[in-house]
Amino acid sequence: MSQAKSKVGRTIFARLDENEDLLNAIKERAERNRVRAGFFFVIGTVKKAVLGFYKNADYKPIQLSEPLEIVCCTGNVSLREDGELVVHAHIAVGNEDGHVFGGHVLPGCVIGVTGELTLVETPNARLKRVFEEKLNLYLWSLGE
Amino acid sequence: MSQAKSKVGRTIFARLDENEDLLNAIKERAERNRVRAGFFFVIGTVKKAVLGFYKNADYKPIQLSEPLEIVCCTGNVSLREDGELVVHAHIAVGNEDGHVFGGHVLPGCVIGVTGELTLVETPNARLKRVFEEKLNLYLWSLGE
Amino acid sequence: MSQAKSKVGRTIFARLDENEDLLNAIKERAERNRVRAGFFFVIGTVKKAVLGFYKNADYKPIQLSEPLEIVCCTGNVSLREDGELVVHAHIAVGNEDGHVFGGHVLPGCVIGVTGELTLVETPNARLKRVFEEKLNLYLWSLGE
Repeated sequence: MSQAKSKVGRTIFARLDENEDLLNAIKERAERNRVRAGFFFVIGTVKKAVLGFYKNADYKPIQLSEPLEIVCCTGNVSLREDGELVVHAHIAVGNEDGHVFGGHVLPGCVIGVTGELTLVETPNARLKRVFEEKLNLYLWSLGE
Repeated sequence: MSQAKSKVGRTIFARLDENEDLLNAIKERAERNRVRAGFFFVIGTVKKAVLGFYKNADYKPIQLSEPLEIVCCTGNVSLREDGELVVHAHIAVGNEDGHVFGGHVLPGCVIGVTGELTLVETPNARLKRVFEEKLNLYLWSLGE
Repeated sequence: MSQAKSKVGRTIFARLDENEDLLNAIKERAERNRVRAGFFFVIGTVKKAVLGFYKNADYKPIQLSEPLEIVCCTGNVSLREDGELVVHAHIAVGNEDGHVFGGHVLPGCVIGVTGELTLVETPNARLKRVFEEKLNLYLWSLGE
């Protein structure tokens, strides 16, 4: 069936600090609170961003070198088969003219004056990411 | 008052498969799990998309015929007055250059390598959609 | 640590009415239901929008004077140090061509035919916004 279910656990609100890397910051808050599965969203600003577009089994990076509003950032937290915590996030960012860019969040999105993270824990969800060689991606392999 | 309340029930995580229609895929996962009211979000990719812009009592379709990242897709699940389950979703998608398009999700958004659905059930919410002839839309008519 | 935790409380679904101001409408539904902390999202349409881009310690307004789909609107509700309820929302909106604009939600986003709000209460979260003079922003000062 490729799905997993859980009750909802704690909601964790965290302020992300200036100059933190967005992906690292989310991962750090999840690990600090021992969240192994959940979903989240973030609003705030970034000083620059690196977005990914999946093509030919890799993420082509899109570099944005200007301050941007985090218009929307949603995603999930789950465990890789080797036990590593994976933050999978997508993002839309807006520039000074309101023009929006978007894609998969890659390392290099640097928090601006602040980021506001809402992370909802789903303690019973067995979300496991398994490497699929053909796609070069860790995708969910869900038990149920 | 036009509102409805519920406790939060199960969170269902599901992997959406390549070539599934996005709207159908969400509906199928909701029905399979007997979710009659809830909210959701999706990240992943689509091979192409059809977005709607509401104008003159109809959705004008916007056809996008290229692979796209699902930058953000949020929405809700509720019942129409005739008992049909309705998935109401809006989406932002990003192309290879990071350029973003968005609107109401119409049939024809085809999942790419994967989609990751997070669906939160709200079991007590009496969300009923009633047809409003002037607008040609099923809108919420909420009890409270 | 700059974080706050809570169990999840009620989910409130509300229909936002034509011509309501988006920020006011969210605040009114939160206050009506005595929600002092939580997170939300909205889909629907607006007749026009005013987005903010944070720069030089202020929000530069971006005026959009056409009907738009609310592609995505996410945010949180928390209390300012003086007890005032603050709705902090970011938004992406799409026009008739599917072109997307985005930023911080400022007053002046006017609901179109309908808006659908999903507001999740987090009753134990002590989310306090404190004025930071240098930034000219009320930012989270979280206890834990």
